[in-house]
Amino acid sequence: MRDTRAMASTPADVKELPSAYEFVLDIPGLKYDDIKVQIEDENLLVITGERRRDDEKDKEDGKYNRIERWMGKFMRKFTLPDNANLDFITVVCRDGVLTVALEKLPLPEQKKPKTIEVKIA
Amino acid sequence: MRDTRAMASTPADVKELPSAYEFVLDIPGLKYDDIKVQIEDENLLVITGERRRDDEKDKEDGKYNRIERWMGKFMRKFTLPDNANLDFITVVCRDGVLTVALEKLPLPEQKKPKTIEVKIA
Repeated sequence: MRDTRAMASTPADVKELPSAYEFVLDIPGLKYDDIKVQIEDENLLVITGERRRDDEKDKEDGKYNRIERWMGKFMRKFTLPDNANLDFITVVCRDGVLTVALEKLPLPEQKKPKTIEVKIA
Repeated sequence: MRDTRAMASTPADVKELPSAYEFVLDIPGLKYDDIKVQIEDENLLVITGERRRDDEKDKEDGKYNRIERWMGKFMRKFTLPDNANLDFITVVCRDGVLTVALEKLPLPEQKKPKTIEVKIA
């Protein structure tokens, strides 16, 4: 699962469960509507969003004595495993944490190894 | 406003408004109950909390392919300005962002400079 970073980034965990893959991102201050989750090229999960200081109106009155929280656009890309089911994606955004889950496709039934009878001449 | 870091940290902005000081911290995944806001030594704002992966139950079944999100206890300390009113503190926790605001005390009335009449002899 290769991850290509561009623009600003935000930390992510990637978890594999028996039945699904989970991508968990910290997005403090963002809501569901601020986030875009897309599949590109059949196997690339792309998560983008933008974080703005919600105090444009305060700019005239207030001043920052310290700024550490990152703002701006961010993007994270994850190459999905072959067995990720692109038809079953759930997106949950809660308390500044985004969780994108993709169900796993059932594995193709494995062919049983063929037993070749060996006759001893 | 000196800031003493200990344990893990989390980014913070400090903003001065005409009537208040605002301390804004990223705390993705945490709720109001996970955070403790205290005043120590009359002028030290201490914000502590602990972030845990909420999947203790998954540990047996799931495995992490990538871990970037920080977990554990954190603490941030801020020395408050003299005119911060410790009796008017508001704490708001929303979408993984904590905002602690302290009203400013009114400035003591400034004495007008005394005009000394100078008589020319």
